[in-house]
Amino acid sequence: MDIRKSRTLSEDVLNTLRERIISGEFASGAPLRQNPLAKELGVSPIPVREALVQLESEGLVVSKPHHGSVVASLSLDDIVEVFEIRAYLEVPLLRRAIHNITERALEEAKEVLEEFDDALLQQKVQEYGRLNWQFHSLLYRPANRPQTIALAQAYHVRADRYTRVQLRNIGGGVRSQKEHRQLLILCRERDEEGAAKMLERHILAAGRELVDFLADMDKDKRP
Amino acid sequence: MDIRKSRTLSEDVLNTLRERIISGEFASGAPLRQNPLAKELGVSPIPVREALVQLESEGLVVSKPHHGSVVASLSLDDIVEVFEIRAYLEVPLLRRAIHNITERALEEAKEVLEEFDDALLQQKVQEYGRLNWQFHSLLYRPANRPQTIALAQAYHVRADRYTRVQLRNIGGGVRSQKEHRQLLILCRERDEEGAAKMLERHILAAGRELVDFLADMDKDKRP
Repeated sequence: MDIRKSRTLSEDVLNTLRERIISGEFASGAPLRQNPLAKELGVSPIPVREALVQLESEGLVVSKPHHGSVVASLSLDDIVEVFEIRAYLEVPLLRRAIHNITERALEEAKEVLEEFDDALLQQKVQEYGRLNWQFHSLLYRPANRPQTIALAQAYHVRADRYTRVQLRNIGGGVRSQKEHRQLLILCRERDEEGAAKMLERHILAAGRELVDFLADMDKDKRP
Repeated sequence: MDIRKSRTLSEDVLNTLRERIISGEFASGAPLRQNPLAKELGVSPIPVREALVQLESEGLVVSKPHHGSVVASLSLDDIVEVFEIRAYLEVPLLRRAIHNITERALEEAKEVLEEFDDALLQQKVQEYGRLNWQFHSLLYRPANRPQTIALAQAYHVRADRYTRVQLRNIGGGVRSQKEHRQLLILCRERDEEGAAKMLERHILAAGRELVDFLADMDKDKRP
């Protein structure tokens, strides 16, 4: 288990549980019991409770009064909606930012895409979400809209949980990387309309592809 | 204090603290100490901690490691952003819903506006947020997008905290009600473009008016 050095114990617990859900180690519907988790992590039940409340607000955990918490299972419709919400937030962020993205940030974004290529080649699926958000957020930062960026990031995390399943199974990401490079060119050209349309297509296509993949997986499981 | 009968103690504590922040009883920057709050509410510190974590994810509370929680104070820029996020989420919800809003829902929405008129006349500011969300959500429900609606509601709650200050001070709401009625007519006519534009204007104008009012208030406080 990779507990990174972060500021507090509560954050460590939160990050550990989030990572386990996103990675698929804790499957949809799996119960999350406070006391066994606390014991396993060597902490008191309080930071575990707090983490579960936070993860519930992030949509990764569902809890019912008097019934404890389970890992949230999103339906295919829910997944489509996660990607729609990303588009609602990220397209206006890019529009606000595009005329103020510095050359340095564009250069950095290009380097992230190269790192991304390596991660895809080596099938390091756990790197995908981090690099994807790093690339996107470099383009959004000059919008100067911190709440919108934080919210968009939360929906990236939710989407990431499913995207990893797909990448692990079909080694995707080639389409995505091609679109990232096109988006970067449009940003360099300060083509606001072109970049906004490209980004919307990129996000919604990723959602659709993922849902098609998961629907196929479901079909295969049937007799 | 109005602790409504809800499913669990934790929810009661959460609702009570949320209401006190939104109403302005707990001012921006005020410390929220677990043990005194728990004692006052006659509960253990655990549900108070949980409520603070949840309120943090709603943007009403800020906590710093080792420094406890305080009521979040939003800058004027933050407030503008809250209304922008509302527009990003609610305009697509209305577009998805408009062709499927039933006659019955339109009738209900009209009744909510009449109740709203009464509340404004009698300066019942605590009713404003509830009625405002009831009106808007009646129009969004047929979009069949539960996560987007829940997220939009969370941003209504954040906006409400400030809108109440304004209503209490200048008895506003007349412009807002006029716009609500225009919006309802456009929904009746299934005028998607017209309704989308009207709604966007309505949300962003409310934000601008509020920020102008708060900026004026700040100016008056200066020597």
